[in-house]
Amino acid sequence: MTRTEFANLDPRIPVVAVDVAIFTVRGGELKVLLVKVKKRPYAGLWAFPGGIIRSDESLEQAAYRELAEKTGWRNVYLEQLYTFGDVERDRTRRAISTVYFALVNAEGLTLKTTEKYAGIEWFPVKKLPRLAYDHAGVIRYGVKRLRWKLEYSNVVWSLLPKTFTLTELQSAYEAILSKKLDKRNFRKKILSLKLLAPTGKMKRWGAHRPAELYRFKTRKPVIVKVL
Amino acid sequence: MTRTEFANLDPRIPVVAVDVAIFTVRGGELKVLLVKVKKRPYAGLWAFPGGIIRSDESLEQAAYRELAEKTGWRNVYLEQLYTFGDVERDRTRRAISTVYFALVNAEGLTLKTTEKYAGIEWFPVKKLPRLAYDHAGVIRYGVKRLRWKLEYSNVVWSLLPKTFTLTELQSAYEAILSKKLDKRNFRKKILSLKLLAPTGKMKRWGAHRPAELYRFKTRKPVIVKVL
Repeated sequence: MTRTEFANLDPRIPVVAVDVAIFTVRGGELKVLLVKVKKRPYAGLWAFPGGIIRSDESLEQAAYRELAEKTGWRNVYLEQLYTFGDVERDRTRRAISTVYFALVNAEGLTLKTTEKYAGIEWFPVKKLPRLAYDHAGVIRYGVKRLRWKLEYSNVVWSLLPKTFTLTELQSAYEAILSKKLDKRNFRKKILSLKLLAPTGKMKRWGAHRPAELYRFKTRKPVIVKVL
Repeated sequence: MTRTEFANLDPRIPVVAVDVAIFTVRGGELKVLLVKVKKRPYAGLWAFPGGIIRSDESLEQAAYRELAEKTGWRNVYLEQLYTFGDVERDRTRRAISTVYFALVNAEGLTLKTTEKYAGIEWFPVKKLPRLAYDHAGVIRYGVKRLRWKLEYSNVVWSLLPKTFTLTELQSAYEAILSKKLDKRNFRKKILSLKLLAPTGKMKRWGAHRPAELYRFKTRKPVIVKVL
C-alpha cells in the first residue's frame, strides 16, 4: 500500500506527521519560518514546513528530511518540542504531529520555495499571518518553551556566532523575551549560570569602547546545574 | 474499519500509541511502575502501561484512559515526556509512542492487575527486569529528564505531601539523583530557587529537634526564573 492509498483509507485513522518550527532573531525580533499552503481547505494560509513520515524513517529522520526538502537546509540542530494530537487539529483527517524545533542563525541561510508551497517567509511571532491547522497554538507553545529554556539552558548557542559580546547576547535574550533587561543584572545572572567562558579577546568597533568576547563552553544543548 | 482491522492492515503503517511512565520514591529509591506483557514476542517481559489511541480521543485523553484502565488511578497529574518513533522499536509492527510521565506519591495507590497483563509491580530503576520494546531506553531518558527537572522546576511537588521538612525534601532529591547531597548547601540552593514557602508550623517527632514545615508555593508545574 502506498502512502497515498493509506492516507485515503479512513480519515479517522491517525497518520503521523512531523513539522519543523524554526525560529530566529532578526532586526531585534523573534521570527518563525512559515510556508504558504496550496491545498484546500487551508489554501492561502501559512504553516510550518512538514509532512507525513515514511515507513522506513524515524521521526527525527523525517524531520531532517522535511527540513532539507522544503528549505534546502541540512546543518540545523533540531530537537523534539512536543507532539500534538487533538482530534480536530486537522480538518481533513486525523493527524498526529511531532514538532521539531530549532533556533538558528539565519545569516547565510537562503530561503528556497518548492512546488508544494505557494511561498516561504520569516514572520515576526508578534505579527503572524492566518495559520493552518493548530499551528497558531503550536507557535505559542514553542515561544513559551523557548523563553523557559533561556532560564535554564544554553539554548541561544545555535543562534549566535561562536564568539559574541555580552551586549550581543543580551540583545538576543531581549528579542526572544520581548522585553528590555537591566544590563548589570543580566550580566551578573548570566555569568552565574556558568554557561559562558571569556575568550580573552576583545571586540573593537568604531568609536565604542572595546568589549570582551565570550563563547558558550558547550555548543550543544546543556542544562544549568543549580543543585 | 475497527482498530484491530487497521492494526492488521500492514505492519509498516505506523500506529500511534501512548505509554505512561510513572515514577515514585519508596524506601529511599526511585522506582518505576511496570506491567508484565502476555503477548508474543514480548511475553514475560515488562513494559509501561499503555496502548493504541482511539480515533475519538486526543493523546492526553488516551494517556489518562490507559492509566485508569491499567491501574485504576484517575487523580495523577501527567505531562508529555517525549515521542519515540524509531523504525525498529516494536518488533511486531511500526508503532509511534508518545510517553506521558508522572512522579507520584504512591502511598494510598493500590496496584490493580488487569487481564491484559500478567502482573504489575514497582521496580527500582537501578534493578530493572528485562524490558519489552524500546522501554529500557525510555526509562533511561525519563530518569535523565526527571533529574534535569529537579534543577529548574518544582517537579517533586507531586511526590511529597502538602507540607514537609527540608530533610524530607532532601531525601526525595537524593533518591532521584541517586547521590548524597550536602545538607547546608542543599538548603541554601533550594531556598534560593524561591519555589518554597515556610508554613510557620513545626514538625515534632520523638526525641528529634522540631523541624520547620515548608510547602511548594505552587502545586502545579513551575519553572525556576533565573533571569
